[in-house]
Order: sequence, then C-alpha cells, then structure tokens
Amino acid sequence: MTVAELQYALGMAGTVAFAATAVAAVAPKRIDLFGALVMGVITAIGGGTMRDLILDVPVFWSQDLNYIWVALAASLVAFIANKRMTGGEVYQAMLYLDAAGVALFAIQAAHKTMQLDFAQPLGPILLGIITAIGGGMLRDVLAGNQTLLMRKELYAVPVTVGCVAYVTLMAMFPTSGSISAGFCMLLIFCLRGAAIYWDLHVPSFLLTRPVSNK
Amino acid sequence: MTVAELQYALGMAGTVAFAATAVAAVAPKRIDLFGALVMGVITAIGGGTMRDLILDVPVFWSQDLNYIWVALAASLVAFIANKRMTGGEVYQAMLYLDAAGVALFAIQAAHKTMQLDFAQPLGPILLGIITAIGGGMLRDVLAGNQTLLMRKELYAVPVTVGCVAYVTLMAMFPTSGSISAGFCMLLIFCLRGAAIYWDLHVPSFLLTRPVSNK
Amino acid sequence: MTVAELQYALGMAGTVAFAATAVAAVAPKRIDLFGALVMGVITAIGGGTMRDLILDVPVFWSQDLNYIWVALAASLVAFIANKRMTGGEVYQAMLYLDAAGVALFAIQAAHKTMQLDFAQPLGPILLGIITAIGGGMLRDVLAGNQTLLMRKELYAVPVTVGCVAYVTLMAMFPTSGSISAGFCMLLIFCLRGAAIYWDLHVPSFLLTRPVSNK
Repeated sequence: MTVAELQYALGMAGTVAFAATAVAAVAPKRIDLFGALVMGVITAIGGGTMRDLILDVPVFWSQDLNYIWVALAASLVAFIANKRMTGGEVYQAMLYLDAAGVALFAIQAAHKTMQLDFAQPLGPILLGIITAIGGGMLRDVLAGNQTLLMRKELYAVPVTVGCVAYVTLMAMFPTSGSISAGFCMLLIFCLRGAAIYWDLHVPSFLLTRPVSNK
Repeated sequence: MTVAELQYALGMAGTVAFAATAVAAVAPKRIDLFGALVMGVITAIGGGTMRDLILDVPVFWSQDLNYIWVALAASLVAFIANKRMTGGEVYQAMLYLDAAGVALFAIQAAHKTMQLDFAQPLGPILLGIITAIGGGMLRDVLAGNQTLLMRKELYAVPVTVGCVAYVTLMAMFPTSGSISAGFCMLLIFCLRGAAIYWDLHVPSFLLTRPVSNK
Repeated sequence: MTVAELQYALGMAGTVAFAATAVAAVAPKRIDLFGALVMGVITAIGGGTMRDLILDVPVFWSQDLNYIWVALAASLVAFIANKRMTGGEVYQAMLYLDAAGVALFAIQAAHKTMQLDFAQPLGPILLGIITAIGGGMLRDVLAGNQTLLMRKELYAVPVTVGCVAYVTLMAMFPTSGSISAGFCMLLIFCLRGAAIYWDLHVPSFLLTRPVSNK
C-alpha cells in the first residue's frame, strides 16, 4: 500500500465516520431516511466543498463520486442501525473514527491550500479548520442544534493546533512534507482522542462570563 | 409559444411562488417590508445560486435580472396581502404553484448539470435537489424555523424521485430529452401535489426512534 | 493621506468593529477564546467572502491577510476585555464603529460590483447589502441567535438606502464617483447612527400581523 492509497483509504474511512456520526447526531430529533441521507452527505462533503469554493477549484467530489456513494451507504447503514440497536459502543467507536477523519481532512486541506500557494501562511490554517468542521457546522445549523462553536467540547482546538503545527513545520522543514503531515494528523487525532476519552471540556474560567454577571 | 418560452414563463411563475410562499412562511413571526423582500429574494434565487457556485458558472440571475425583479414584486404583493387578508385559499394556491416551481427548477438544474457533464450521474441529482430546496432551507435557517429536513412533510422526496427518474431516462433514451424532462417535472408536481392535497407525511415507523426510547 | 489610504484605514477600522462587536454579541452565551476568534473572523470577512464567491473573483482576504490578522487581534482584545470590564460605553462606541464599517463595506462592494459590470443595476445593490450584513447573519446563525432580518432594528434598511442612492448617483453623474461614494457612506452612517442614538425601530404598523391575529 502506497502513501497515496493509505491516504485514500483514510479519506474514505473519514467519510464513513462523518456521515454515520451525523445520522447519529440528528436521530434523536426523529428524522426520516431521506433526511438522514442528506444530513450524512452534507456533513461528509460540506467542509471540503466550502474549501474548494473559496480556493476556486472544482469541488473534490465532482472528480470522484466515491465520496458521495460512501457517504450515502454509511448514512443508510447508520439509519437502519439506529432503528435497531442502542449503539452506545458503536457510537463511541464512531467518535474515534470521526477524530481520524477530522485529522486527515484538516491536514489534507492545509496541504492542498499550500500547494496552490493560497493566502499563506494563514490560508492553509483557515481552510484546514473550515474543511474539518464546516460540514458539522452545516449539519448543526440545518438540524437546529447548537453549533460546536458554542459548545465547550474540545473539537476545533485540536484541529487548529494541528494546522498551525503543520504550517510551522513546513516552513522549517520544507522537504519533509510527508513526515510533517503524518505527525500533525497524529497530533490532532491524539488531542481529539484524549478529549473524547477523558471527556475534556474548556474550563469555565476560560469562558466569557455568564449573562447573570452582566 | 415555444418550449423555451414556456420554460421561461414557468420559471417566472416558480419564482413568484417561491418568493410569495417565503413571505407567507415568515410572516407569523412579524417581519417588516425589508425583511420580507430579502426573504423572498433569497428563497427564490438561493438554490440556483448554490448550484451555480458549485458548477463554477456565472450565477443565473446575473444574466437575467428579471428573476430578481419578479421576486421583489411578488414579495411586495405578498407582504401587502398578508397585512390585509387571511389568505388561506391564496396560500393553498401558492403551495401548488410552489410545487410547480420545485418541479421545474429541479429538472432544469439536473439538465444544466448534465449539459456541463458535471459529476455524472450523481451530480445532476444532487444539484437538482440543492436547487429546488436550497432557497427554502436558507429561508428557514435565517428565519429561525425548523428546516424541511427535520419536518415530516413530503417535500424533498418527490424532488429526489423526479431527479433520479430524469437521470435514468436520459441514460436510457438520450435523444428524447424534452419528453423525459416534461415527464419528470409532471412526476414531481403530482407527487408533491398529492402530498399537499392529502396532507401526506412520512409514516412514524419510518422515522428514527424518539429520544425517550433511547 | 490619499483617498486610497483613507479607504484602507477605514476598512481596517471596520474590520476591528465587526470582529469586536461579534465577540460582544456572542459573549453572553459563554464562549471560549477559540469560539470568539472564529466568530470574530467569520463576522469580519463573511460578507465580503460571499460577495467574491458570487462575483467569481479571488476572495479579498487571500490577497491581503491583514484583514484576518486585524480581525484576530480585535477578537482577542474583545474577548479579554469582555472578561474584565462591563464595557457598556465601549460597546456603544463599537456600535458606531460598526456603523462606519457597514457604510464603508456596502459602498465598496457596490463599487467593486459596478467596476466588474456585474448584473447592473441590481447587482451592486444586492452585493452591497450581502457584504455589509452577510457576516453578521452568519454569526447569528452559528451562535443560534435571531438573525437581524427578524429583528425590528434599523440595520439593513440604511444599507439598502445607501446602495440604491449610490447606484442612482453613479447613473446620473458617472464622473463624480468619489463624491457619490463619500456621500452615500455618510448617508448610511448617519441613518444607522441615528437608529443607534435614538434606539429607532421599525414601527409596529409596518410589520406583518402577529400570530395571534391569524
């Protein structure tokens, strides 16, 4: 298996995770199959679509429909599974797969943005974040859920740390792209994984003050 | 009247319906004239704008501002009418006009996507759905209403059935484009019309389980 | 200081205002630093990004990252300040700076759209409005707040009046672009400033009827 094949396999695994966790996230609101499929696909491809629109390049899924087929299949399975089992453990596993997807998509996006020499050095970081969390934000807005920007969960912070690290490493060691990319993906995955495992949240004293104090 | 003229007339009728039903949908929340005009225009052109951004072609209304003028006029009339009459019957008529607009815009979008040979065969279906329901979803998000993905109404399903049928028919009979398009528009309109007439909803057993069972 | 330098300075001041008022607007919901930075940047660059995607030109911040650095810095300061002081007066001052930003960004966008000869005469007005209020609408949607389209505040109306005036003046006096632009920015700022100062709202009889009357 080459690096490219590994990346592609990880990309598909991330797509599965994005779509399946999306269906699990909106299922408590009672959704039909069609809504589940749309939510799954939007979550899986939404962030990358925003990135490509801003970069003004063809949207990635128009060149490889496997991303959509896989998202549809994963949403379908998640919809059926949701009706048949409680799935606490499956959902937990999905969260880690989602973390892997976030790690991969963020660094891939930062890499793509760098290769296009777009708005360096902030562009790769911004588009890495948008790609990783944009689909989930669309899902939350369309489902009427609180977006992750308003939650205390550590989700976007690991992504940001990883993208900043990637841009920094690439500036310092421009010839070791693959190692930097691998390291930063691992960094995001470990930070996000730790947040899932220990249920880490942003501590209260780092938040703005509640309304009552105003 | 040629086929092109008929299509154009239907497009304008659909624009009227999209704008007017949008104003009617947000009116219960008390909205001023400016809000009504913006909501009407966004609903009427939002879906097609998303389609054209993804296709990377000039947005359709930049080439023919009649779409915006008509949306503004329809929103204005709907705003005034809303202040003066109860309009239950007018709204009912608008729903059928909206169904015609949805049918037309979905198949037009699928056709445009096919002509550009974009991401076949899934691209025409996805962009047909986005064009038909994208404007309404934007409206619901901006108005703070539940989006139609979370409602049990049969709205997006007829659109999807029609777009899938169109792509299938075009693959089987590539030379009978007009007949296929006409048939699929009629199919969407009849399915959506039946859902309005008999107030059809997605049956409960096809939904994900409610939260209380979790 | 040339006109171009003055415009640039005003653009940066507007960016500061957009980012800082965004953080102040979402702070009552308790947000962490990362959320504050993202909200600030999205609000500051969201409207102009939508404009550039529709115009199909490179997004403005990709050519000058100062817009993002300034938005980040302003968001950081606003986040820290929000934790340390009540800031009623600072917020009031920010509102006027925000009005100046809105005035500048709206007319700049209308001007850019005209120069590209895009969808005249409605295009410059539409994109002026989108640029001025698009970032704020994104912010409200992501924060789960009511969007300004549903509030009775006079915010978008001054922008619209100014953009319509600009397009009209440019059609009548095509050679006096700078004077028209300056006048229309001042017009928007004064109208919006008056709305802030006297807390003006859309009068009830201009609104659609409340639900209870239906």
